[in-house]
Amino acid sequence: GRPRPSSAVLGHHPAFLLGSGMRVPYETDEYRVIGALLGEPLKVVPSITWGDELLVPAEAEAVIEGEILPWRLEPEGPFGEWTGYYSGQRQSQVLKVHAVTQRRNPILVSVFAGHRDHVTNLGWEAEILRRVKQAVPCVRAVALSPGSAGMHCYVSIDKLSDGEPKLAALAAASVGFVKAVIVVDSDIDVFNESEVMWALAIRFQADRDADIVRGHLGSMLDPSMDHPRTHTVVLIDATERKDRPYPKRLRVPQEVMDRVCLEDYVPGVEEDTR
Amino acid sequence: GRPRPSSAVLGHHPAFLLGSGMRVPYETDEYRVIGALLGEPLKVVPSITWGDELLVPAEAEAVIEGEILPWRLEPEGPFGEWTGYYSGQRQSQVLKVHAVTQRRNPILVSVFAGHRDHVTNLGWEAEILRRVKQAVPCVRAVALSPGSAGMHCYVSIDKLSDGEPKLAALAAASVGFVKAVIVVDSDIDVFNESEVMWALAIRFQADRDADIVRGHLGSMLDPSMDHPRTHTVVLIDATERKDRPYPKRLRVPQEVMDRVCLEDYVPGVEEDTR
Amino acid sequence: GRPRPSSAVLGHHPAFLLGSGMRVPYETDEYRVIGALLGEPLKVVPSITWGDELLVPAEAEAVIEGEILPWRLEPEGPFGEWTGYYSGQRQSQVLKVHAVTQRRNPILVSVFAGHRDHVTNLGWEAEILRRVKQAVPCVRAVALSPGSAGMHCYVSIDKLSDGEPKLAALAAASVGFVKAVIVVDSDIDVFNESEVMWALAIRFQADRDADIVRGHLGSMLDPSMDHPRTHTVVLIDATERKDRPYPKRLRVPQEVMDRVCLEDYVPGVEEDTR
Amino acid sequence: GRPRPSSAVLGHHPAFLLGSGMRVPYETDEYRVIGALLGEPLKVVPSITWGDELLVPAEAEAVIEGEILPWRLEPEGPFGEWTGYYSGQRQSQVLKVHAVTQRRNPILVSVFAGHRDHVTNLGWEAEILRRVKQAVPCVRAVALSPGSAGMHCYVSIDKLSDGEPKLAALAAASVGFVKAVIVVDSDIDVFNESEVMWALAIRFQADRDADIVRGHLGSMLDPSMDHPRTHTVVLIDATERKDRPYPKRLRVPQEVMDRVCLEDYVPGVEEDTR
Amino acid sequence: GRPRPSSAVLGHHPAFLLGSGMRVPYETDEYRVIGALLGEPLKVVPSITWGDELLVPAEAEAVIEGEILPWRLEPEGPFGEWTGYYSGQRQSQVLKVHAVTQRRNPILVSVFAGHRDHVTNLGWEAEILRRVKQAVPCVRAVALSPGSAGMHCYVSIDKLSDGEPKLAALAAASVGFVKAVIVVDSDIDVFNESEVMWALAIRFQADRDADIVRGHLGSMLDPSMDHPRTHTVVLIDATERKDRPYPKRLRVPQEVMDRVCLEDYVPGVEEDTR
Amino acid sequence: GRPRPSSAVLGHHPAFLLGSGMRVPYETDEYRVIGALLGEPLKVVPSITWGDELLVPAEAEAVIEGEILPWRLEPEGPFGEWTGYYSGQRQSQVLKVHAVTQRRNPILVSVFAGHRDHVTNLGWEAEILRRVKQAVPCVRAVALSPGSAGMHCYVSIDKLSDGEPKLAALAAASVGFVKAVIVVDSDIDVFNESEVMWALAIRFQADRDADIVRGHLGSMLDPSMDHPRTHTVVLIDATERKDRPYPKRLRVPQEVMDRVCLEDYVPGVEEDTR
Repeated sequence: GRPRPSSAVLGHHPAFLLGSGMRVPYETDEYRVIGALLGEPLKVVPSITWGDELLVPAEAEAVIEGEILPWRLEPEGPFGEWTGYYSGQRQSQVLKVHAVTQRRNPILVSVFAGHRDHVTNLGWEAEILRRVKQAVPCVRAVALSPGSAGMHCYVSIDKLSDGEPKLAALAAASVGFVKAVIVVDSDIDVFNESEVMWALAIRFQADRDADIVRGHLGSMLDPSMDHPRTHTVVLIDATERKDRPYPKRLRVPQEVMDRVCLEDYVPGVEEDTR
Repeated sequence: GRPRPSSAVLGHHPAFLLGSGMRVPYETDEYRVIGALLGEPLKVVPSITWGDELLVPAEAEAVIEGEILPWRLEPEGPFGEWTGYYSGQRQSQVLKVHAVTQRRNPILVSVFAGHRDHVTNLGWEAEILRRVKQAVPCVRAVALSPGSAGMHCYVSIDKLSDGEPKLAALAAASVGFVKAVIVVDSDIDVFNESEVMWALAIRFQADRDADIVRGHLGSMLDPSMDHPRTHTVVLIDATERKDRPYPKRLRVPQEVMDRVCLEDYVPGVEEDTR
Repeated sequence: GRPRPSSAVLGHHPAFLLGSGMRVPYETDEYRVIGALLGEPLKVVPSITWGDELLVPAEAEAVIEGEILPWRLEPEGPFGEWTGYYSGQRQSQVLKVHAVTQRRNPILVSVFAGHRDHVTNLGWEAEILRRVKQAVPCVRAVALSPGSAGMHCYVSIDKLSDGEPKLAALAAASVGFVKAVIVVDSDIDVFNESEVMWALAIRFQADRDADIVRGHLGSMLDPSMDHPRTHTVVLIDATERKDRPYPKRLRVPQEVMDRVCLEDYVPGVEEDTR
Repeated sequence: GRPRPSSAVLGHHPAFLLGSGMRVPYETDEYRVIGALLGEPLKVVPSITWGDELLVPAEAEAVIEGEILPWRLEPEGPFGEWTGYYSGQRQSQVLKVHAVTQRRNPILVSVFAGHRDHVTNLGWEAEILRRVKQAVPCVRAVALSPGSAGMHCYVSIDKLSDGEPKLAALAAASVGFVKAVIVVDSDIDVFNESEVMWALAIRFQADRDADIVRGHLGSMLDPSMDHPRTHTVVLIDATERKDRPYPKRLRVPQEVMDRVCLEDYVPGVEEDTR
Repeated sequence: GRPRPSSAVLGHHPAFLLGSGMRVPYETDEYRVIGALLGEPLKVVPSITWGDELLVPAEAEAVIEGEILPWRLEPEGPFGEWTGYYSGQRQSQVLKVHAVTQRRNPILVSVFAGHRDHVTNLGWEAEILRRVKQAVPCVRAVALSPGSAGMHCYVSIDKLSDGEPKLAALAAASVGFVKAVIVVDSDIDVFNESEVMWALAIRFQADRDADIVRGHLGSMLDPSMDHPRTHTVVLIDATERKDRPYPKRLRVPQEVMDRVCLEDYVPGVEEDTR
Repeated sequence: GRPRPSSAVLGHHPAFLLGSGMRVPYETDEYRVIGALLGEPLKVVPSITWGDELLVPAEAEAVIEGEILPWRLEPEGPFGEWTGYYSGQRQSQVLKVHAVTQRRNPILVSVFAGHRDHVTNLGWEAEILRRVKQAVPCVRAVALSPGSAGMHCYVSIDKLSDGEPKLAALAAASVGFVKAVIVVDSDIDVFNESEVMWALAIRFQADRDADIVRGHLGSMLDPSMDHPRTHTVVLIDATERKDRPYPKRLRVPQEVMDRVCLEDYVPGVEEDTR
């Protein structure tokens, strides 16, 4: 019920921007997270308006200081959103500005709204990796595919048993907004969409290896949803099955790869690792 | 590839038995967990056979010291198992005994194999609660129903959104062996099977609110499985929906409950809270 | 189109209350059913208002005589209902009272509305048993679980073939309002919810052994329904399969049970049969 | 463990053949059922071999008397079966013949094995009608379609509520061997396959109105089954929905039908009622 | 945006009526199709109103000439439709009549609206056969069952592999309005509904051999649809499986059929081929 | 039953290689297809062994002439296959070589077995486009994704009605081996996997918009299949729905794109169109 001292920081070191978008538990001090990413404590100074009550970063390009007013909402938007669509208007809180400070010739950093750099998955990927590791210690990597606006999650594991891929998928899907989890073997690079598609094509049968969970927490910005808050998530096991013999994967032997120099044949071309 | 110094402890304080059955991460020192449960450090002494290389509890009823031989397996079983069935025979490792120490008139503690006290869920419940809390901070309680041999998990939450029950269910099911997760509102006591059944009857539609995930890690002792390692887990949302008005739950007002004394009417009878 | 002579009986022998709540075919004389339960014919007398046209029980605590008016409806409710929720208001028929007779110091019997004794399943259990027996003569027992407000039906059978449990489930579900039928082997006591949960945990796979039937007749008082009149019923086979060898159930031999007297070990404790 | 006096009756009044194929409860006297169908008691005489111990029909074309030997099985078959396929060989009991009696110039009645008159559904239709009536008093007719070798059951009802068609389907499917139940409104003639197909085309949506129940008791002679004893039954509601307005069915008014005489236009042609 | 010269032809040779109802690609000249069916070019004459700009058939019973007005719609209907129901009213285009020509004593041909001859499937059957043949060259016949108002499609094939029936079903269902495709072996006559039902009963398991595709283009006249434009189509494989041995179909040997003359036994009766 | 004159052509113009891998109907002359791709008739000469009976291409790098022997099979393989796995051994026909002709210093063209250039989809894409166009004239493009080894088919359409995407999917899936069909709106470039993934993430709900068809013709080389010949295909509608208002897609206006020159800001960088 009281005004909340606040500040908006426009432009800073990339570690600042990254750290302030991480998914950290509610009571974590974000300045410490940013410091960890910077490799040194974040430098802060008292704000002009609130003094020591609100510390603001010392090296921001610009800082807007003010207070968020209690019980006051005004219509905001529509905005271009990470979904690639315009959102509708929303009732939002109001920041009453008291002061603006800035460097000389500040560089304001922005995202290209609704395009690919609007989707910053790094914080989510870290959180999903943490959860999957609890369920399946043999997890190798987690990627939120940029093509899918970060809604498809690819997880690679070194499984010991046929029951582990679905454990990994369940843990990954315990994070909201994810619409698909595809679990692959660790010979697949989850940051390479083509490799994941190959696993889906060659190691997966849709009636046997996919399950859906409905009523999952979705994003209100997703225009495909029928329910205002929930969507459906798909859990996919695209790993080799251990209950049958599997043929051998086709690979050029490493000794051949070492011996051959692609540049001898096609000048200027780099190797395709697949 | 080398013999592993080992000891089997027969009979100790209940906190010892409980702590040694907890699901703790791989590198955790179980003696410290037991100490936490005891409220004081566990007293240990050097073993007769291995000295300081293997510390054994000082106050056990009996301790069998020995070494587990590498690469040697012998058939063991069948045993009566927590499923209520006899297991088959298994190839198991061999403990070569070097020494047995015991108190005078030791009391050996055992479980009544295959009956209810064979199922000790406490460690699992704690782990599931920890995982659900990451996904849904509003979780209230987690119970592994004793009737189901600990395979059915009941979770109560104070949900803010219709998408949260399934997040809770996914997190709970990221633990293997669980065959059903039923998420209920916090007015339901998850330790009272009748109340959970009531929520299932009155707040659930089977075609809409239940999802299944196949290929989930099951127990090799479960005789109902078709696959040697995997089973199917059911995820159930039995909470009131927030997307429609719900009638009021029937309750005797607290002031009436306070005023009425059951014993005035039926001498010797305790209140049924439902 | 004419007024219907009617009477409401408040308080009588429990057999009277039970018999008047039985599900008997439309033209059956309920007084005869009550007589069968009493073990002797029900004593009746001519009503004061209608004489021999309407006979009322002679030994009721109180009888309200009157007529139900044709074509007249008035709003009634909301009531506390067996679902544990308040119902909405309904348009109901009107009883115009002509006379009230009663014993001296009558004891009026009531139910604790919306709590467990509001659910009286005995009549339904008998009807379901009758139907299941036609389909599967080897049926042993039928229970409507009180925890589920009588909406979950547990059926035990001594099956000869793997096809019989679903026949039993279909016959049981041919009664409206039932939301789940769980068929178990006859070693399970269907009146013990824990035993049924055990069968569900150890003898059942959700993707293989459960089927749902949508569009089934539901109760208008069930707040979980999407359709005003229909809900979904689940049919579950939780029996041991006959198409594979099953391990032996763990049992203390009867001769041991006979020899051992629990009271020798724990004074004052009764045996738990499971 | 003792030989069972038996006789095989070859050829008799059609009511005899029909009655001996009825599905009557286990202890019912089939001679009485046949008598009911004949409209008079079946005439019987003592058998030559067993005298009054085994009464045989007096007016059969031929009777083979003998005893079924205990514990003796011999391979029999393959036979042409009602499925239209040859069965495999089976181990069957042996009838040791003691006497054969016959009329002069007896007429032996047989079925054309594996063709349409091999399928006699009348007894099953009566039993299904009896069961459906218990669940849904408004049932109008039950037919086992001859085209489907009696495995598809068509049921017409005058429903009051959208929940009744599935009650009827469940009751009908509580009889084994049935592979599909299609419930239609009473304007459909269930003995006319074309009309049932029309209801399926115009009043049914496959994702919404059909449910399947697996593990249902099937016929061992059905070559499409994966499991030796069970198959899958489909329950279909092809009635008009009561939860939305429905257009009017197109009908020539009765007064026009009465006025028009088809023979005036097409000499010798009978009316098609649809 | 300009008036379109048009004519309505009432009554002509059956080949004319058939050809004008064929499903031919958009730019095909329908007069040529009709000519193909007639076996000679259709005779046409200049229209009275538009001369050579609009040629009309020379031998029609009656021709209404006029123009369809642009941008003008008027309510039309309800009509009795091929579904057997009345349609609602629709906004339709308007034909402004300029001339009517007719033969002396013309015979106007009509359909009995909403009854069986309202459904003319021949054009659709040809188009479906053409598409199925591309996917499965071994297709033998395609029928749209008249009982189903042409919405159920029966396809017979001589399959070489278990994967072909579903290819045939997919190709057949790539035509809108079809609600079911049933693929059978070529020993089944798809124009005989009873034979198709037999294949469905004896060669099909509903959980294994049927798939549904939702969101398929339906007819706006189908009163069972929930969505204004889409319905659900069922794809059914009712062929013998090639992955297991199948019993032999029961057939009277051809040499016996040739030797036997049914008329010798039942004067005046024709053979039933099944 | 007779030897078949045959030749193997090693190395030729790319149009030759492409044309000989096209999916053309059985009786089509492949030399004519190759000629069409070349833009001029393929030059052929009589073979040395068979003369005019077998014409071979005149400009091949090398030609192996021989005869395929009837009824003779020998084990062949394993080979590296397009799936990325080694195949097993197979019994294959035998080519008895009679002559080898070649250019001087011939260049033998090969594929890098089991790697991406082993998958040549062009012929299949043309055939699928042809079939989809019959069902949905508004089809815009068809791509078999190289990442999926050509097993995932992406189809873009300009739909007029919500029923068309599934028609397109059914037509595309009437071709064997395809394991998934994803239908998107025409604003999506089907040759850009990221764009298809975006449509799947933002315009698709898995429970509502995907259907599966089992028993579909699969490739014997696919190691994920349970059945030797069949797999499961998924049909996905990832288009915007027409039965609800959709938000506006976020696009930089074309006039802005025209005005801005990326190179002014980032020297040497090309535009990313998304």
